[in-house]
Amino acid sequence: MKKHTLAVIVENRPGVLTRVTTLFRRRGYNIESLAVGATENPSISRITIVVCGDGRILEQVTKQLYKLVDVIKIVDITEEHSVDRELVLVKVKADATVRPDIVQIVDIFRARIVDIGKSSLIVEVTGDSGKIDALVDSLQPFGILELVRTGKIAMVRGSK
Amino acid sequence: MKKHTLAVIVENRPGVLTRVTTLFRRRGYNIESLAVGATENPSISRITIVVCGDGRILEQVTKQLYKLVDVIKIVDITEEHSVDRELVLVKVKADATVRPDIVQIVDIFRARIVDIGKSSLIVEVTGDSGKIDALVDSLQPFGILELVRTGKIAMVRGSK
Repeated sequence: MKKHTLAVIVENRPGVLTRVTTLFRRRGYNIESLAVGATENPSISRITIVVCGDGRILEQVTKQLYKLVDVIKIVDITEEHSVDRELVLVKVKADATVRPDIVQIVDIFRARIVDIGKSSLIVEVTGDSGKIDALVDSLQPFGILELVRTGKIAMVRGSK
Repeated sequence: MKKHTLAVIVENRPGVLTRVTTLFRRRGYNIESLAVGATENPSISRITIVVCGDGRILEQVTKQLYKLVDVIKIVDITEEHSVDRELVLVKVKADATVRPDIVQIVDIFRARIVDIGKSSLIVEVTGDSGKIDALVDSLQPFGILELVRTGKIAMVRGSK
């Protein structure tokens, strides 16, 4: 069982997302993360899906996806040299005494503090899952109040 | 017709995403962006959905969402003081002659260059949709080869 990252290019029409996710569901694929947004052309959306499962079944799902009228193109970028990025917001407990320690961690990870409350901070970070997991682990001891991730997006490098 | 941002907290089980998007679809809501990822608790996912539509119908959708067993909590953060962020990767045409101009734009937007190819660059930027649209507009004249967005995530500020 291997993780696969797919870029699915679709027409931006109602219901297309549901049709795409239904195909994965029927084949027993659990979607680990999914991000969908407009592309350089507003009538076209790009869905980035991370799934974990058997490669042969994924091939079948891909064939079925192509049968959907709104699907324009599917690229499996798992094996490509790509830029993999995810955005995460973390709200962490932070009274005045621990703030300098948190600021130091934020600097090390080249993350950003985007909100300061009386007893909490919101930290924004982008990176691959390794970097994000490492930052979250470092903030854990202070107490994580809330965490939201976008799901991964990926783009094939031009520098191959 | 107004844009709404919903945070839907769900159990991380197969099919939950499909069930959630189906409810919006049935009510004729087109999902403008959707991002789903794990939270501080890996068995719980958070879906951030941006939809455009009538407030009263959205209330009905919310009620129906609560009837799904896997839905734990729904928060409409449209009116809250929140940190709104999206991550975008843009591949832009860039031969040696225009690179300095692009680097300057990237600096102004506090974006980052994350890949350099022979004839292209990949730029990473986070921000609210206003900032992202402005950066994309600035890069447009150079030629945008590829663009991928995560969809918006949002977190209520601790500083209210």
